[in-house]
Amino acid sequence: MSGLATLERPVDAPVNIGRLRGFVTAFADLLAATRDEQAILESGRSLLARLIAADDWLPAEFARPNPDRYQQYLLHCDSRERFSIVSFVWGPGQATPIHDHSVWGLVGVLRGVEKVERFRRLPTGGLVAAGEEWLREGEVDAVSPRVGDIHRVTNGLADRPSISIHVYGANIGAVERATYATDGTPKSFISGYANGVIPNLWDRSKSA
Amino acid sequence: MSGLATLERPVDAPVNIGRLRGFVTAFADLLAATRDEQAILESGRSLLARLIAADDWLPAEFARPNPDRYQQYLLHCDSRERFSIVSFVWGPGQATPIHDHSVWGLVGVLRGVEKVERFRRLPTGGLVAAGEEWLREGEVDAVSPRVGDIHRVTNGLADRPSISIHVYGANIGAVERATYATDGTPKSFISGYANGVIPNLWDRSKSA
Ligand SMILES: [Fe+3]
Ligand SMILES: [Fe+3]
Ligand SMILES: [Mg+2]
Repeated sequence: MSGLATLERPVDAPVNIGRLRGFVTAFADLLAATRDEQAILESGRSLLARLIAADDWLPAEFARPNPDRYQQYLLHCDSRERFSIVSFVWGPGQATPIHDHSVWGLVGVLRGVEKVERFRRLPTGGLVAAGEEWLREGEVDAVSPRVGDIHRVTNGLADRPSISIHVYGANIGAVERATYATDGTPKSFISGYANGVIPNLWDRSKSA
Repeated sequence: MSGLATLERPVDAPVNIGRLRGFVTAFADLLAATRDEQAILESGRSLLARLIAADDWLPAEFARPNPDRYQQYLLHCDSRERFSIVSFVWGPGQATPIHDHSVWGLVGVLRGVEKVERFRRLPTGGLVAAGEEWLREGEVDAVSPRVGDIHRVTNGLADRPSISIHVYGANIGAVERATYATDGTPKSFISGYANGVIPNLWDRSKSA
């Protein structure tokens, strides 16, 4: 199973990492231009859609599923932790717990299909279902305390990994947030990251 | 030879990567507060001196000498390429060519000793020696077109690697700059980096 994500492309194929570098700088420019969440989500959605329209830039080691649990690979974190970019890799049958984010986030599917179940929290603390959506390759979803922050994400493919690229308005692996039991009972968590090294996006001497 | 840099500390010793993370955010805060080069070099010198005062944070894979040439390992690049942080590793007998930078830079010795030879370019294009200095552990030097931008750096130890940590006011591996023959003849170069992955500084869930 753990080799499936790379079967479509040889492991050592040169990757077009310049796409991710361009996305990082464009997103940083966007955040320098506005602090308005709605503007960030709208323009950021276009940037992310453009990034995931091509699937030739994610190095294989950050696309690798783990048979035990879904993986969160940090790809870039801003110097002042104003934003972070993460690849999420779900093996067959894998899902997140129900969780929140506490900051704005964008989720774009790079490979495969993801089922997103949204929830709303009642004033009493209970959770109610608030819709379900299947995100396909190239599609982008948004989360935030303002637009709806609680969801569960499941790999929509039974036989292959799915991969999505996420952008958040903080160093998401360090944010204290919550998972929820189905009755709404919250539990504090900090996700961290699966990777001890991240890709070097910055070597222009090797890209044309 | 290539194992010597790590002899002082087992390869798998936990590293205090939080020091480097703190340096990155402090430097980004400094650049957000001022664009004045003199202020950046003065305050940046203090930040760098504090970083290199401890030698418990650089992961072994970014401290490794290469028998063929000195190594430039990118440790962090800012989202908008306003600054970059690099570890330079010289094996015994290794030296840079005479070169310039075209942006401000700070050089702090983390391990060992480095010989710095400074040069000035005459209006005729020739080079003249402009002083020599031995930088020891904990010492910091500055370069820029304003304060003096042309030098050659040599490992000052005949039997061990030396390592310095550099900060530059750009993505230095992508900057088009020059090396010089001893008669001053310039040759354009872009240094790139030796590493395809950089350390993940951002997983606070694993540090206390
Ligand atoms: Fe989520
Ligand atoms: Fe230099
Ligand atoms: Mg020492």
